[in-house]
Amino acid sequence: MDLVTLSDVNDAADRIAHAVLRTPLIPCAWADPERPLTLKPEILQVVGSFKIRGAVNALARLDASVLARGVVAYSSGNHAQAVAWAAKQLSVPAHIVMPEETPQVKVDATRRHGAEVVLCSSGQREQVADEIVTATGGTLVPPFDHPDVIAGQGTIGVEIVEDLPDVDVVLVPLSGGGLASGIAVAVKEMRPGARVVGVEPALAADAQASLRAGHRVDWSIEDRNRTIADALRSQPSELTFAHLSQLLDGIVAVSEDEILDAIRELALKAHLVAEPGGAAAVAAYLHHADELPPGHVVAVVSGGNIDPEMFARAMR
Amino acid sequence: MDLVTLSDVNDAADRIAHAVLRTPLIPCAWADPERPLTLKPEILQVVGSFKIRGAVNALARLDASVLARGVVAYSSGNHAQAVAWAAKQLSVPAHIVMPEETPQVKVDATRRHGAEVVLCSSGQREQVADEIVTATGGTLVPPFDHPDVIAGQGTIGVEIVEDLPDVDVVLVPLSGGGLASGIAVAVKEMRPGARVVGVEPALAADAQASLRAGHRVDWSIEDRNRTIADALRSQPSELTFAHLSQLLDGIVAVSEDEILDAIRELALKAHLVAEPGGAAAVAAYLHHADELPPGHVVAVVSGGNIDPEMFARAMR
Repeated sequence: MDLVTLSDVNDAADRIAHAVLRTPLIPCAWADPERPLTLKPEILQVVGSFKIRGAVNALARLDASVLARGVVAYSSGNHAQAVAWAAKQLSVPAHIVMPEETPQVKVDATRRHGAEVVLCSSGQREQVADEIVTATGGTLVPPFDHPDVIAGQGTIGVEIVEDLPDVDVVLVPLSGGGLASGIAVAVKEMRPGARVVGVEPALAADAQASLRAGHRVDWSIEDRNRTIADALRSQPSELTFAHLSQLLDGIVAVSEDEILDAIRELALKAHLVAEPGGAAAVAAYLHHADELPPGHVVAVVSGGNIDPEMFARAMR
Repeated sequence: MDLVTLSDVNDAADRIAHAVLRTPLIPCAWADPERPLTLKPEILQVVGSFKIRGAVNALARLDASVLARGVVAYSSGNHAQAVAWAAKQLSVPAHIVMPEETPQVKVDATRRHGAEVVLCSSGQREQVADEIVTATGGTLVPPFDHPDVIAGQGTIGVEIVEDLPDVDVVLVPLSGGGLASGIAVAVKEMRPGARVVGVEPALAADAQASLRAGHRVDWSIEDRNRTIADALRSQPSELTFAHLSQLLDGIVAVSEDEILDAIRELALKAHLVAEPGGAAAVAAYLHHADELPPGHVVAVVSGGNIDPEMFARAMR
């Protein structure tokens, strides 16, 4: 299987530069000086997460005639907002299929970016999205299972190595694996000595189990839905698993309490509001030092779209 | 009285570039599209506030022989951490005089930056600082009443106009006036059509009263201490008042509830944790539209060092 290359990622970086914030690296004076911590705060993106990178790159790769028929995505979360926003910038219609139980705040945010939101029952998302594709001739933009999406997310890795050339460890939240795949492509090529480590909730650690088994292991959606990290409930695809098994240096699994603690620490010490999935890498830094390679750590704070009640719970 | 010039500010920018984060401008998709809002998040600085700019510039201006004797500051808040951090980078000793009632979290942060913290009763801060200056031969670094400090803070204004050349309104939290003075120097020279508006808590609106009177009006410290915005309880000096009366386009006063609302909005929509003083400019944007000039607004989110209990209160 062909993997995404650094050249693909660099092309994506050129393609998305006009639309995407080059997020700064934030050093943490409060961290252990023996293993410095620097944050890559993707929560600062206009849609509140890194997903804007893959979405903008994927849309930019479409021919104008195809693009004009619009784009379609199914997502209850950050990918929905990213595709809606990217489509709006290009003045093309976007249909976003969301499960009926999606928090109103996320439905509203997606509509605010100009998308038509189609609500359906949770199990019917893909079918409804396919029907819209058939009816409109629009293009489905998958959340992670596509080389253009992976290349877009990989631009984060390029920025990390450019801005901190002596980085030793990059900690990346892992769900479907698009973000970790893209970052690993960039970092391992630009700085082969650096380690890229994925971070999963222990309650949805299917990728860790898969890497150990050497093949994809299926965890039920009921199992994966136990974690509060709603952004980390997906499983790698064949494409992302191929990247992860070849490039990733390991996966750390974090507990729910460790995630809540990381949300609190990020808020009070780094002044950043992370959603549970967005705080997972910092949870690994704070609570799993013994499982990490030594040296200077960059933790990707991947998203900040947290439910107010969940945030209040973390801050108690 | 000689005011700080754009040339002074540009020199400061060169002097501090190695140590200070060039904070990105963050567009707010959730704001009123008729009057776009962009944030300048100084909370991302390693000390959690803009104060690092003035402190680094002031120390960089000292002769090596003077610097070697160390620096002294009195502050219960963000200036303390900034001077301590800046001194540590230059490997010179720092004495920070803090009132005994300073929250432990701020004392700890200042010590973490390597400073010697001297606790004293609230009314004795200046006297104790003077004694340390006499004993050590160190240099007192004032929190706002100094041209080098004002020029350092003004670098924010340069960055705003460089990164958003068509900015119409810059909203700046106002206390002693160093930040507003510096930003006004830069913005009014680089883009004369833009308006620079200060924001004070209504409970500590001495500068608004002073500008209206045409001379400095004294509010008692008891009055000013009523606001939860502990960073906005100072009064302009002769030097900063001269800048403000010549350059500022107005002052908006915000209520305590408006400040708390802005903290909540910033956390949930922009994913930024602001302290009460740091949220004041956004409070003015959200609740005082009728007092503001039209057009594209940049709000300076000046600091994020909030007490956990205060933050929890805002998030309820």
